[in-house]
Amino acid sequence: MATSYAERTQAPPAPDTGPTRRAVIDCDLHNVVPSTEALFPYLPAHWREHITNTLFKGVIDSAYPPSAPVTAQPGSAPGDGRPAGSDLDLLRSQVLDPLGVEIGVLCCAYAVDSLHNPDAAVALSRAVNDWQVAEWLDREPRLRASIVVPSQIPQLAAAEIERVGDHPGFVQVCLPVRSPHPYGSRLFHPLWEAAVRHGLVGGIRFGGSPGNPPTPSGWPSYYFEEYAGMAQVFQSQVVSLVAEGVFDQFPDLRVTLIEGGFTWLPSFMWRLDKEWRNLRRLVPWVRRPPSEYIREHIRLTVQPLDAPPDARHLLQIVEEIGSDEVLLYASDYPHLHDADPERVLLSRLPEALAQKIRSENARSWYRLAS
Amino acid sequence: MATSYAERTQAPPAPDTGPTRRAVIDCDLHNVVPSTEALFPYLPAHWREHITNTLFKGVIDSAYPPSAPVTAQPGSAPGDGRPAGSDLDLLRSQVLDPLGVEIGVLCCAYAVDSLHNPDAAVALSRAVNDWQVAEWLDREPRLRASIVVPSQIPQLAAAEIERVGDHPGFVQVCLPVRSPHPYGSRLFHPLWEAAVRHGLVGGIRFGGSPGNPPTPSGWPSYYFEEYAGMAQVFQSQVVSLVAEGVFDQFPDLRVTLIEGGFTWLPSFMWRLDKEWRNLRRLVPWVRRPPSEYIREHIRLTVQPLDAPPDARHLLQIVEEIGSDEVLLYASDYPHLHDADPERVLLSRLPEALAQKIRSENARSWYRLAS
Repeated sequence: MATSYAERTQAPPAPDTGPTRRAVIDCDLHNVVPSTEALFPYLPAHWREHITNTLFKGVIDSAYPPSAPVTAQPGSAPGDGRPAGSDLDLLRSQVLDPLGVEIGVLCCAYAVDSLHNPDAAVALSRAVNDWQVAEWLDREPRLRASIVVPSQIPQLAAAEIERVGDHPGFVQVCLPVRSPHPYGSRLFHPLWEAAVRHGLVGGIRFGGSPGNPPTPSGWPSYYFEEYAGMAQVFQSQVVSLVAEGVFDQFPDLRVTLIEGGFTWLPSFMWRLDKEWRNLRRLVPWVRRPPSEYIREHIRLTVQPLDAPPDARHLLQIVEEIGSDEVLLYASDYPHLHDADPERVLLSRLPEALAQKIRSENARSWYRLAS
Repeated sequence: MATSYAERTQAPPAPDTGPTRRAVIDCDLHNVVPSTEALFPYLPAHWREHITNTLFKGVIDSAYPPSAPVTAQPGSAPGDGRPAGSDLDLLRSQVLDPLGVEIGVLCCAYAVDSLHNPDAAVALSRAVNDWQVAEWLDREPRLRASIVVPSQIPQLAAAEIERVGDHPGFVQVCLPVRSPHPYGSRLFHPLWEAAVRHGLVGGIRFGGSPGNPPTPSGWPSYYFEEYAGMAQVFQSQVVSLVAEGVFDQFPDLRVTLIEGGFTWLPSFMWRLDKEWRNLRRLVPWVRRPPSEYIREHIRLTVQPLDAPPDARHLLQIVEEIGSDEVLLYASDYPHLHDADPERVLLSRLPEALAQKIRSENARSWYRLAS
């Protein structure tokens, strides 16, 4: 990949001046905690001492291994040992400025869900969120952020949402798609209730380290399997949310699927609608076809874009989704993907729809001031 | 559903006489073991005594609960207490005769995979296979069958394939799609090796009772979730088979996905191909794009047909699959599905392709004499 991310995403370049400028709202930017020590200013003395004395190296997130090709595009690591995605200035110069990002929604994938010690999970969640406020939101007005929560214990997650949920910079709760129980389970009602009460989106994101295998048939052998198979994990979470009636229980709940692809959505909705007609007596609280709940309550970011070899087929997918509202622009910075949404998708769509995907869907979904 | 299966599948009726008759090869017919006692003639004295004394009621297969709407179409149970799918005469009068089935491939979903006692799993597998020979294959020349194996212990499965694999009536090994380990794992090499050596197809079928949850996020609450979500289990098995290089290790291996739907295939292949380009250095033995392996080594039965509301979209899916060879006709008798493949799919395709799906793809895939 010889060209830079900015070069690729700007090709073909569009004049970007004055009233013709196309606003972009980027719904998937990753801000990465550079090290456990970076959280020390936001941790109580007890945990600073504990971390120092136990040589705790920080949470383990296997979703994006440091040396995997997808983890970091060239130039996104600061070069001082900190990981890609940990530097605000690079975020500005590599994404916010060159792409003309009006608003960017951060999704911090800090893996508190991997911790078995619930007190540590709470302390680190709080530290990460205070770090997000001080080091990202307070410093860059174009940014919004996602609350990191100990999702493995939903009541504790709800308490953290309660603590910071009214900060105007937080627009979302960040939830790893891999989880020990399906997110539709009643176990998670406290979490969804808190998110809805604070007007926050539930952002289900790629990855997670819950301890259980990432496939319904046990542990795969290679990261390639886990990466490609993550789309199936997203699908099973949507089945659960719809089937358990979470959207009936919380009619204002909005869920964004972040980094799970979207080309699987049409055929997935066909199957879900068909089996709902067949088996709806088992879930009588699901009163409408699942696809209606999905189009109303779920949005999907466009990156990674699992583009077909034939460009016509991608346009068919967009048509089959059956709604202009559900796709949200995302660069997924600093992760590396080959397909550029502007070139592969947006430039081929009617301009009104393209602009909805670039910014207007997100503006309305995240209730961003225009 | 007031009309009978035969009425529905024959509407619109086609004259079915002489040289204009359209041959059908039905690749998914279920023959159901009516009771554990029905296997007594095929079990050693030790196991007859054990089953009698322990009040063992037979294996537990949760894939098709007896009272679920999808389990049995009206009239498919003999009415004497035996379950739907257990009576050869009904199979003849409800499917083989009215649909003009030239050859029907039985897929017996007897859940030996649910047994923790490996000796019991072996004994019951042997009994079921001998029962299939005596009570189905020997009595009805239009039938072929699938070998039931203790798939949870691949070496024992290989031994059973060795024992009966050369019987001309067996064309396939029946494997539940839910499994404790992904089928690409090296654990399963002995099973695949035996299947290939005996010229048998690996038939991965809906269901299974391995003990681990049917989703990558733990146990769902409702059967609706398990049923609709089974498509994701199929997908994760295909990821595993391709990524582990099983088709490179066994170039003659053929795998049929039975009852998992097929409309998900195109977008699934797009993602898999894309991530292979991205991550292929992790699986260097996968030398070609995954979609090429899939089109060459995998077939899918068309029932259940997760049909979209717009018929054009289904034709787009068939085009996107990119091969005329991969779909196989199936009625899935005695399971109940609403969409009739002839009406919804085949009658809308070019006749040459429709006839390939009705019979010619299966004839060549299963190496059936014409």
